[in-house]
Amino acid sequence: MAAKAKIGVLGASGYTGSELVRLLVRHPHVEIALLTADRKAGQEMRDVFPQFSHLALPKLVSIESIDWSASGLDLVFGALPHATTQRVIKDLLAKAPKMKVVDLSADFRLADPKAYARWYGHDHLAPELQQEAVYGLVEIHRAKIKTARLVANPGCYTTTSQLPLIPLIGSKAIDLDEIVVDAKSGMTGAGRGAKENMLFSEVSEGFHAYGVGHHRHMAELDQEFSTAAGRDVIVTFTPHLVPMNRGILATIYVRGTNGKSPQDLHGVLASFYDKEPFVHVLPFGELPQTRHVRGSNMTYIGVANDRIKGRAIIGSALDNLVKGASGQAVQNMNLLLGFPETTALEQVALFP
Amino acid sequence: MAAKAKIGVLGASGYTGSELVRLLVRHPHVEIALLTADRKAGQEMRDVFPQFSHLALPKLVSIESIDWSASGLDLVFGALPHATTQRVIKDLLAKAPKMKVVDLSADFRLADPKAYARWYGHDHLAPELQQEAVYGLVEIHRAKIKTARLVANPGCYTTTSQLPLIPLIGSKAIDLDEIVVDAKSGMTGAGRGAKENMLFSEVSEGFHAYGVGHHRHMAELDQEFSTAAGRDVIVTFTPHLVPMNRGILATIYVRGTNGKSPQDLHGVLASFYDKEPFVHVLPFGELPQTRHVRGSNMTYIGVANDRIKGRAIIGSALDNLVKGASGQAVQNMNLLLGFPETTALEQVALFP
Amino acid sequence: MAAKAKIGVLGASGYTGSELVRLLVRHPHVEIALLTADRKAGQEMRDVFPQFSHLALPKLVSIESIDWSASGLDLVFGALPHATTQRVIKDLLAKAPKMKVVDLSADFRLADPKAYARWYGHDHLAPELQQEAVYGLVEIHRAKIKTARLVANPGCYTTTSQLPLIPLIGSKAIDLDEIVVDAKSGMTGAGRGAKENMLFSEVSEGFHAYGVGHHRHMAELDQEFSTAAGRDVIVTFTPHLVPMNRGILATIYVRGTNGKSPQDLHGVLASFYDKEPFVHVLPFGELPQTRHVRGSNMTYIGVANDRIKGRAIIGSALDNLVKGASGQAVQNMNLLLGFPETTALEQVALFP
Amino acid sequence: MAAKAKIGVLGASGYTGSELVRLLVRHPHVEIALLTADRKAGQEMRDVFPQFSHLALPKLVSIESIDWSASGLDLVFGALPHATTQRVIKDLLAKAPKMKVVDLSADFRLADPKAYARWYGHDHLAPELQQEAVYGLVEIHRAKIKTARLVANPGCYTTTSQLPLIPLIGSKAIDLDEIVVDAKSGMTGAGRGAKENMLFSEVSEGFHAYGVGHHRHMAELDQEFSTAAGRDVIVTFTPHLVPMNRGILATIYVRGTNGKSPQDLHGVLASFYDKEPFVHVLPFGELPQTRHVRGSNMTYIGVANDRIKGRAIIGSALDNLVKGASGQAVQNMNLLLGFPETTALEQVALFP
Repeated sequence: MAAKAKIGVLGASGYTGSELVRLLVRHPHVEIALLTADRKAGQEMRDVFPQFSHLALPKLVSIESIDWSASGLDLVFGALPHATTQRVIKDLLAKAPKMKVVDLSADFRLADPKAYARWYGHDHLAPELQQEAVYGLVEIHRAKIKTARLVANPGCYTTTSQLPLIPLIGSKAIDLDEIVVDAKSGMTGAGRGAKENMLFSEVSEGFHAYGVGHHRHMAELDQEFSTAAGRDVIVTFTPHLVPMNRGILATIYVRGTNGKSPQDLHGVLASFYDKEPFVHVLPFGELPQTRHVRGSNMTYIGVANDRIKGRAIIGSALDNLVKGASGQAVQNMNLLLGFPETTALEQVALFP
Repeated sequence: MAAKAKIGVLGASGYTGSELVRLLVRHPHVEIALLTADRKAGQEMRDVFPQFSHLALPKLVSIESIDWSASGLDLVFGALPHATTQRVIKDLLAKAPKMKVVDLSADFRLADPKAYARWYGHDHLAPELQQEAVYGLVEIHRAKIKTARLVANPGCYTTTSQLPLIPLIGSKAIDLDEIVVDAKSGMTGAGRGAKENMLFSEVSEGFHAYGVGHHRHMAELDQEFSTAAGRDVIVTFTPHLVPMNRGILATIYVRGTNGKSPQDLHGVLASFYDKEPFVHVLPFGELPQTRHVRGSNMTYIGVANDRIKGRAIIGSALDNLVKGASGQAVQNMNLLLGFPETTALEQVALFP
Repeated sequence: MAAKAKIGVLGASGYTGSELVRLLVRHPHVEIALLTADRKAGQEMRDVFPQFSHLALPKLVSIESIDWSASGLDLVFGALPHATTQRVIKDLLAKAPKMKVVDLSADFRLADPKAYARWYGHDHLAPELQQEAVYGLVEIHRAKIKTARLVANPGCYTTTSQLPLIPLIGSKAIDLDEIVVDAKSGMTGAGRGAKENMLFSEVSEGFHAYGVGHHRHMAELDQEFSTAAGRDVIVTFTPHLVPMNRGILATIYVRGTNGKSPQDLHGVLASFYDKEPFVHVLPFGELPQTRHVRGSNMTYIGVANDRIKGRAIIGSALDNLVKGASGQAVQNMNLLLGFPETTALEQVALFP
Repeated sequence: MAAKAKIGVLGASGYTGSELVRLLVRHPHVEIALLTADRKAGQEMRDVFPQFSHLALPKLVSIESIDWSASGLDLVFGALPHATTQRVIKDLLAKAPKMKVVDLSADFRLADPKAYARWYGHDHLAPELQQEAVYGLVEIHRAKIKTARLVANPGCYTTTSQLPLIPLIGSKAIDLDEIVVDAKSGMTGAGRGAKENMLFSEVSEGFHAYGVGHHRHMAELDQEFSTAAGRDVIVTFTPHLVPMNRGILATIYVRGTNGKSPQDLHGVLASFYDKEPFVHVLPFGELPQTRHVRGSNMTYIGVANDRIKGRAIIGSALDNLVKGASGQAVQNMNLLLGFPETTALEQVALFP
């Protein structure tokens, strides 16, 4: 491979931004050419993330200071807040229409302008890009991603929920009206904004549900599950906060259709993911632990018998910052730029 | 009150034992007269729990060394392992038939000898005591407890699940065939035994389900739910481990019967627990956090709308070592000995 | 005791404020009559600290809304930020000169106006109160506290450091020029302000020193150590942050004077604190753990041999929110109002 | 590079063993050919460490089952318990004298048979190998390591302490009689043995010192510091346990000789480590955090002014399982087998 691809990270001072940098510095075919962070512009990456102190990285700049048409970038990762994103990406693609974009915000995940307006309370600023964007859940939409310009990287809760459920819904193996997703996430999923309820003393040594009944991730689940089913599907979904940094576990309660047993459901998933490098289905009866995928791009899925006949308990675990965000984004980048899909994503979980 | 009641704690070197001591040393009407710990016999309590270093407490002795008929104890707490318990309590009550016993093990919780044999794999050693024992969930069985000799203190998961569900089941407010209990517990619920999977490095920074489909607490739930319903009730129940010391949260998914809304279910619980000192129902739509009951004898219960019409999400939180074990045991003791029910249990949660 | 004393807590929405409320609700001789929280005025205490949801407490009000001369309060706790405090207390005591005040801020701890100006960068707003205030380290200054009107409650790091060192300095048992205090604190010591470096994800699973060489607590140490020694004493002091909520441990390195051995130093401390209810000296060679004083008003102190002859290693542990703040403040209140010193402070540590 | 080197890991069911596997699976020039775990022999690596579930690895075997002379291994890592190690390695090198060994136990770190006998209470079983072994602190002993057969990989506490202190001692920049090392470690340093005091509930939410005055790591420090100084050097050393999985921070108190300022000491270290890939000296005045080296092979060192003139505070941070154990072991392997020293060790810290 001759020249390295030039990559930009927009929003490098947040956790998904730093995680992108962590992964990209070990990628043999790319060069980090741009790092932005509006409020930290002018600082070094090591000032906001000291774990990079011993590395040479571009200085943080503001987005406003960039001339997109002259930037020479091959691909940009968007790790910006909701709403800011659509404004920036619209401008960027107008000025540099050949650039590729993997966006980690929620801005381009909903294809339906009405659904977007209903969940977010305002019309989308770039509806034509909303139409163009490809939903970047690789294991489900790989073919479409390869030829895309703009990929909407899925959310962490939704990736955890979709990877086990989409194959089951798509194969009509489970009852669509009785799906309960009880999800538990580590704190990094909430980002780096300084809020009282995210302080160590408010989070440590405790556990709670939040956003009950109105979490925005539900819109994304509704869209993807309904597409897979060919009809409207609404699931019960409750997110909880775990006093840990990384990891999401979804415990999912389903009923098999037409006498399908939990073993049958396990069979559907095991065969669907047989060749996938980043989804591993555990032996029947074993449920996954988040710690065993920490820092890796793996998703571990398990299926077990419920004690109520005909019902199954499914566990799905991933690292919200890797397969649930930046790792999946790099996986998307590899597809967009023609690199082997697993490049820079080979790390094994850091346990303990 | 003239003389103080003389109290013994069998199994004082475990967490429920030390928690009993923590509560009892602030009880104005009792005196800790006996502490046992077979493997630690001869040691001081401060040697196994240094937080008592500045207090005068009886030295730890072995159970074998006790002459029950001459002990002069008014009440004994059993905080011994399963199976050992039934042997010891049988012997104790044979020799000192007027002594009262609050047992924290699972040995006397199941009233049905067949259910016991099925779940535990052997016949009960003291079937007549099994019949005599009163199930000590105070808010549900208060009247029977007051006149009991032997109280079987409920388990922590089951207390968390029963307090919200028994009133709903008893009033036929929810569908009995569709109850899902997704429960999450801190580590102290697993006791103080030295096992690899309980090491800090195995537990910290991770989350997982365990005992899926075959957790022994289910037998206790089956019994109490079926009694309340007047028919067999089996619920889906999945326990998880949270990297924290104390606290259990149960997230419970139910469907109202006959058009009963989540608001209606909230009303049932709010009115059922209106006068109870240790169960507090939060305003509709708010779900509890374990940290807000840590170290206290309170149970906080909340009810919220599911996004699927007709279904409700219920949260129930308590401290597994207090209301889930030793606090409820002291509450039972207060009833058995005629003290005000809240004595020594007034502490507010230690948060943060 | 006829009427209960009426108590106010200024700044009830912070951690020391809520901890005062936790302790005071179990005090038989006081009534919480006033709770202030400027930015949360109008809310209930349960809105900012849900652990009080089941209790009746006064609504939060703003300080500006209070008529001090008509308040009828017997004593007020100040749990306000630095600088705000001196303004508020000056006004309060001008209008209600008979009220007693226990102030938990740093504003009245330094007796020397010049030291204050040097460390805080401005002149004190109430220099006459600065002169009047009594430094509230009970075990050292008990007699003066009893007759005071305004008590400056000591800091958490400084209480941890002074309790072992003042008796040793005062008895000339250690070399004054070679004292190293390596201190480690839980996160609640940093308060409830929403700052990025206090987020769970920034604190969990890591450890670091901070404020090296310029921590403001040093001024307080300098004052008290120099007073005890009768000459200037400056110690090396490094604070660190531990990923836990509560607790401070100081590991202190000293050299005995005139051949005094670590055993001798232990003897000095054991005899000095022999009758104290809240300071316990462990057997020689044992060092304390913060978990064994969590939630209690105890300080545990231990002394052990260093491997270098003539040098000792001293450990001192307390709960920064109790003996390091609100518990000591209640202890001061008990002295000021003539209650038994230990009232409402009898709780044993919550471990595990 | 034609054929890959064949590598064995003895003791793969412990934390240093699994960490070796984690690093080696990304090493392009080696093949994991042997994994032993006596009590888990016959199991798959995924049974004891589920994070390897998706990888193909050799089954765990017992050491007894191996024919060393026919094993074809190029290098073996010893991650066995103390004492077992010397017996196994002696046997192994007798039968396969050309094999190279990097041993992670303490068995070969002390060169002096008398020191070994004094600290461990028995004579060494392989005194000739004790003489042959090279102490594997790469940055200090790189040249000797390259030609060694048996490398004694340093301990985690001692690596953390030596990297900042050896250059200062060697250049006579600090007073040798006044060095205090206050060290804090995460729990993985204590291994995977199931002990009560390592349970989550015993470790979480607390902090304490341990092994005061008699920690075995002191022998290793004494040897290396004395060698560097050319005279006997004994330092004060206190280890503490932090409720976190990974990381060691040493806070070190020293006095500069001959008027050397903390800035001068910083200069010594900055220049000593200028070209080193795995030791990074932070700008003067900044002290490191363990979280910024978590999972990486980096050591971060900082130097700051003490408030007492002439004294400096030094911070040194590394991941005890990487640079403090398995990462350094792989670094040693790279030297022994002629690979670039940084191969498979390029990972950036996993923060948050």
